[in-house]
Amino acid sequence: MQTLKKIAVVGSGLVGSLLAIYLRKAGHTVHIYDRSPDIRQIQFSGRSINLAMSNRGWKALDGVGIGDAVREIAIPMDKRAIHLVDKLNFQNYGQEGESIYSISRGILNRKMIDLAEEAGAEFFFEQKIWDVTLADATLHIGETERGAWEDKKYDMVFGADGAFSRIRHRMQRQSMFNYSQEFLNIGYKELNIPANPDGSHKLDKNSFHIWPRGEYMLIALPNLDGSFTCTLFMPFEGENSFDLLRERKDVVSFFETNFPDSIEVIPELAEDFFKNPTSTLVTMKCFPWTYGDKVALIGDACHAIVPFYGQGMNAGFEDISILYEMMEKYGEDWEMVFSEYEKSRKPNADAIAELSYRNFLEMSSKTADDKFLLQKKIEKVFSDRHPDKWIPLYSRVTFSDRPYSEALAIGDFQNEIMQKVLLTKDIEQIWDSKEVENKILELLG
Amino acid sequence: MQTLKKIAVVGSGLVGSLLAIYLRKAGHTVHIYDRSPDIRQIQFSGRSINLAMSNRGWKALDGVGIGDAVREIAIPMDKRAIHLVDKLNFQNYGQEGESIYSISRGILNRKMIDLAEEAGAEFFFEQKIWDVTLADATLHIGETERGAWEDKKYDMVFGADGAFSRIRHRMQRQSMFNYSQEFLNIGYKELNIPANPDGSHKLDKNSFHIWPRGEYMLIALPNLDGSFTCTLFMPFEGENSFDLLRERKDVVSFFETNFPDSIEVIPELAEDFFKNPTSTLVTMKCFPWTYGDKVALIGDACHAIVPFYGQGMNAGFEDISILYEMMEKYGEDWEMVFSEYEKSRKPNADAIAELSYRNFLEMSSKTADDKFLLQKKIEKVFSDRHPDKWIPLYSRVTFSDRPYSEALAIGDFQNEIMQKVLLTKDIEQIWDSKEVENKILELLG
Repeated sequence: MQTLKKIAVVGSGLVGSLLAIYLRKAGHTVHIYDRSPDIRQIQFSGRSINLAMSNRGWKALDGVGIGDAVREIAIPMDKRAIHLVDKLNFQNYGQEGESIYSISRGILNRKMIDLAEEAGAEFFFEQKIWDVTLADATLHIGETERGAWEDKKYDMVFGADGAFSRIRHRMQRQSMFNYSQEFLNIGYKELNIPANPDGSHKLDKNSFHIWPRGEYMLIALPNLDGSFTCTLFMPFEGENSFDLLRERKDVVSFFETNFPDSIEVIPELAEDFFKNPTSTLVTMKCFPWTYGDKVALIGDACHAIVPFYGQGMNAGFEDISILYEMMEKYGEDWEMVFSEYEKSRKPNADAIAELSYRNFLEMSSKTADDKFLLQKKIEKVFSDRHPDKWIPLYSRVTFSDRPYSEALAIGDFQNEIMQKVLLTKDIEQIWDSKEVENKILELLG
Repeated sequence: MQTLKKIAVVGSGLVGSLLAIYLRKAGHTVHIYDRSPDIRQIQFSGRSINLAMSNRGWKALDGVGIGDAVREIAIPMDKRAIHLVDKLNFQNYGQEGESIYSISRGILNRKMIDLAEEAGAEFFFEQKIWDVTLADATLHIGETERGAWEDKKYDMVFGADGAFSRIRHRMQRQSMFNYSQEFLNIGYKELNIPANPDGSHKLDKNSFHIWPRGEYMLIALPNLDGSFTCTLFMPFEGENSFDLLRERKDVVSFFETNFPDSIEVIPELAEDFFKNPTSTLVTMKCFPWTYGDKVALIGDACHAIVPFYGQGMNAGFEDISILYEMMEKYGEDWEMVFSEYEKSRKPNADAIAELSYRNFLEMSSKTADDKFLLQKKIEKVFSDRHPDKWIPLYSRVTFSDRPYSEALAIGDFQNEIMQKVLLTKDIEQIWDSKEVENKILELLG
């Protein structure tokens, strides 16, 4: 029989809450700490991007039987709605019946905390963890960084405290700890499309809406109440940038010119623009993720990525699936559990970081590019005819639970093939011909 | 007339001391803080690699008229002495008369502190800086990190506090601060070849000695007292690793087998091996390097590199030359001085980081490789005949003050050419023929 442990989870976000449910399932005592107040009792921050739950996320939720409870607050999106300046295109995400799911981060977080409490985890809000003693899993808690601290000793500590993790901050000061943080020169701002008076959605409800404009873009994801959460991604400085939008009239005129069909659906444009903060985007990598059998990082705390593949939460949830797999495999040997967990996850975290970084280009520029759309059409036709030979990269990442690193490698190989295929004479005319199909078959070898 | 500033320099190492001399030259008040005791009053640590001063270092020293004082404690090395298991080869570093200079870090540091004091800088040793308030250049000093601190306000603070800089640590917690630290899986250990009883050197005094063995290597640099400071570079784990050398007999037998000609000249091998620590090697990059007109990082604090190009100190000293150039150019506009300094230095710091990382391969493996030695011979002959057309990469880095980034770019171009030349039929026989010369001329375009 397993020795039950007393475990602290630092961070009551999505990953922290789900991890707590898994640890409770295994019978351990779980205390969750968060420096912020209980999100169930406060207003949301106005700095969130809606989540797109996909296969890996659902798998982790279903693994503890809470997938259906979350499905109740999710809206399926089976396609991209691409708003060009003068027309609207649609592009399916996957096969018939495959969707990603829009969920409000705040609403999901509230539900996850409820579910973790039901599972028997105990929450401690407004408790600031400033430091951790790695060797004996002791948390140091206090009002301020320089003030008095109280010590709380556990058998084990999980750092699920996000991209700016304090738990990692301590590990970072160990020798041989590799670490990088890199900020994009692109910021983001939350905006809002309210519901119609009758509660219906002002735009197609089952689409992920994108206004691709090269260096910058606007996106909108549906909410249950008929509204959409919009996010504007734009450089901080330069020709089209936050820096230049300083007055109400600048903002309105920028949207009128560049996102003409958004103007009538974002009534509070200028108010929201100046009320909501401009947030930064960071890619953070590190290694190792664990310390002996005492401390482990999970989710954004060990692999923060930019949001352009919609995989941040999915990757964090998959960390938990893999951790649990190792717990079942290695039982009480927690050092082995931790070491196999980090070894298995690190290459995949690196791969989804790379894919997410690249996807900004795809979303902001390529979805408005004819050549790229042609490539997607050719892939789609070939994949429909040879589903065993060609699964598109997006589907490998989004509708599968095969490793991200495999998706990246195969995706690069497929892209090389497609670049050659696109050089075919008159490809615009013969893109769905037998000739093109045979060429792809040949290149696949 | 310039407004004179009250400036704190954190770190009394080589870069901190030289910077202090430059700032005194400009007339400012300079206080230097160091967490350690005065190096002039303690024994050296046994974890140092001897320095190889080259062009960039001398230029910075000569800029404040202290080059000659340092030349007195330097030993010229005009060649590599390559100790293969069964023979000894020599390879000149540059043209006739070009040398790099071996200097003991400790001896140089003591001298630099003396010189900085003579220039009027004031030193405060055993003063631990734990934090800095960036906005008003205030240092926070105390016995312990969690204990009481005293505040010292300056007009400006320079962080010359090395790879694990506390000043940078504060900047790192700002948004939009890019940062990475990456450790090599190779560690190093200091060993010692003592002088002969008559004070002469046991090995050729004017050579940089290398025992290249692929994954690991031993080097030795001469000291004034007839001894050599040796450094063993080796993986922490694996087939030939520190991990396997746990007993005296393991160490002795490893050296007997792999460095047979070193055994008789390192009498205290096992004693030194177990007395001296195994140190780590890190590459650290970050940006920005400055905060307004208040705080600037310099040397290892903003660009720590691995030691395989012998450029760490030289690059740090060159930072000071460039900073001073900007001070002369922009006068009292310190925000401009700092911003142009970091803009100018960052690409060069990245380039020397890359070159240093690559050079481990060159030193440990390629210097024992016939093809590589042939390449060097071809380059040498061509460069002698066409000095205007071909300066070897090593010379661009070591015997020039052109930007590192330029050296890296041209070096890559030259290497592409040489890879093509090495494919020439019978190249081993015709390497110094007219045909090969013409081929290079043609490839140079």
